[in-house]
Amino acid sequence: MSTQLPHPTLVAPANPAHALRLAARTATHTSPTAGYAPGHIQANLLVLPSAYANDFRLLCLRNPVPCPLLAISASTGSATSVTPNHLFSTPFDIRTDIPRYNIYNAGKLVESSITDLKSHWTNDHVAFLIGCSFSFEGALEAAGLPPRHVVKKCNVSMYKTTLPLCPAGVFTDGTFVVSMRPYKKEDVERVRDITRPFREMHGEPIAWGWEGAKRLGIEDVSKPDFGDAVEVRDGEVPVFWGCGVTPQAVVMAAGDKIKGNVLAHEPGHMMILDVREEEWFGRTAKREGRL
Amino acid sequence: MSTQLPHPTLVAPANPAHALRLAARTATHTSPTAGYAPGHIQANLLVLPSAYANDFRLLCLRNPVPCPLLAISASTGSATSVTPNHLFSTPFDIRTDIPRYNIYNAGKLVESSITDLKSHWTNDHVAFLIGCSFSFEGALEAAGLPPRHVVKKCNVSMYKTTLPLCPAGVFTDGTFVVSMRPYKKEDVERVRDITRPFREMHGEPIAWGWEGAKRLGIEDVSKPDFGDAVEVRDGEVPVFWGCGVTPQAVVMAAGDKIKGNVLAHEPGHMMILDVREEEWFGRTAKREGRL
Repeated sequence: MSTQLPHPTLVAPANPAHALRLAARTATHTSPTAGYAPGHIQANLLVLPSAYANDFRLLCLRNPVPCPLLAISASTGSATSVTPNHLFSTPFDIRTDIPRYNIYNAGKLVESSITDLKSHWTNDHVAFLIGCSFSFEGALEAAGLPPRHVVKKCNVSMYKTTLPLCPAGVFTDGTFVVSMRPYKKEDVERVRDITRPFREMHGEPIAWGWEGAKRLGIEDVSKPDFGDAVEVRDGEVPVFWGCGVTPQAVVMAAGDKIKGNVLAHEPGHMMILDVREEEWFGRTAKREGRL
Repeated sequence: MSTQLPHPTLVAPANPAHALRLAARTATHTSPTAGYAPGHIQANLLVLPSAYANDFRLLCLRNPVPCPLLAISASTGSATSVTPNHLFSTPFDIRTDIPRYNIYNAGKLVESSITDLKSHWTNDHVAFLIGCSFSFEGALEAAGLPPRHVVKKCNVSMYKTTLPLCPAGVFTDGTFVVSMRPYKKEDVERVRDITRPFREMHGEPIAWGWEGAKRLGIEDVSKPDFGDAVEVRDGEVPVFWGCGVTPQAVVMAAGDKIKGNVLAHEPGHMMILDVREEEWFGRTAKREGRL
């Protein structure tokens, strides 16, 4: 009888989130993550040279609707450990576990859709995980209000807006990026109610209706800046949420004030966390008891 | 030898914050509080019928720059106890300890400049204390950059803007209110640096310069919506911070969606807390270690 332990890669993943991360790590899963590992919290990524980490952390804390901060590298250069440490119960690696990544330099997108960050990550990089609206799509589906991009199995529509962020340090010129889901006018209040509790996943919408689109400076909802276009049918209106692609727009707006490479996920291609909605809300409720 | 205890009102106040609250309670101090009890944190007030408390709490958490939430009534109807409980080390009463108050009904200012809330407070009211930029004026003075309204001993200039808040529940139509201090163009970066750490007192400015004023929808800085006008001299630019009068603008925008009286401080007339800057920052740093 053999007492040899199985090879690590042969051990069954502990949960669907871990399974998806391993599939992304081996470039087996390279598509958007909406609808995958239902019930698990998904996260946006931004990775900055350490010199900008404090300013970016402050930017998140001042703009929690587009940039709800979930976790930061436990130390400068760490891609496998974040604080707080309750988001993952199995191993993860920020450099490999997201299906696709973007690289920015001096405010310009210089590489896109790459499947790992192995050759870009340095000991001076600090990673930020930011809440994602995919986390509340299960609740919308459960209420009979599935987002159209989930039904169509495409990426969510995302738009740059003219709505300014509150500046923080070097990040003075950022504007909101928003995601959009079309809903019937009469369903908007229910959609607001359902997504409101998901505070650290952008929470309730920031604007809705054609007037709302105009106020955000979005001229044509059929032409998203990121992701795929979805139809807005007769009787429906566009509903807009804060979006975790905002940090990438902020980095572009900062231009050559940022020295060194900035690393990010490709919009729609998320880090999937081990933590599940129900655990997250239990913990948040406990923390908020202290304000 | 008498063993009789002194009458409570004859006991010397424990600190300048407590002294100012007692002076406000007896309507001895009825003027703006900028420059008083230096080193102590000052707070804005909003008091709502309990039905709207959850939505308003969420509005603060989604808009922490104009509405940095410091504390809430420990229970519905409580005017003498808040959570968290470290803001006061001596007794306080939200109904009496602010120099002047405003009353709103159905979105309209119905009474102003009254010196207590005794006849307006009900067992159904919930109080919110919100950070105030007066708290960082000591740091500006210490750096040789005293705000002009402190030098002139008048109230700070405050303006309604067109910059929308992130909606929360019933509060869908609010916009930022900002305070303004003029500074020389070349001092703006230093002013940003000095006020940045005061995150729960509005932190660094949200806009500056004449272009910044325009972006906020402020057409004439010599005509503030609240407080007093101060001169912007040649070579100076207006610098704008989030302002804790924002909740009053939000309540006005909500109009008759809010049933019952809403109670607030009169702009510039603050609740002065026992907690001092250095204690506050020690506690915040500790809490932020946990994100």
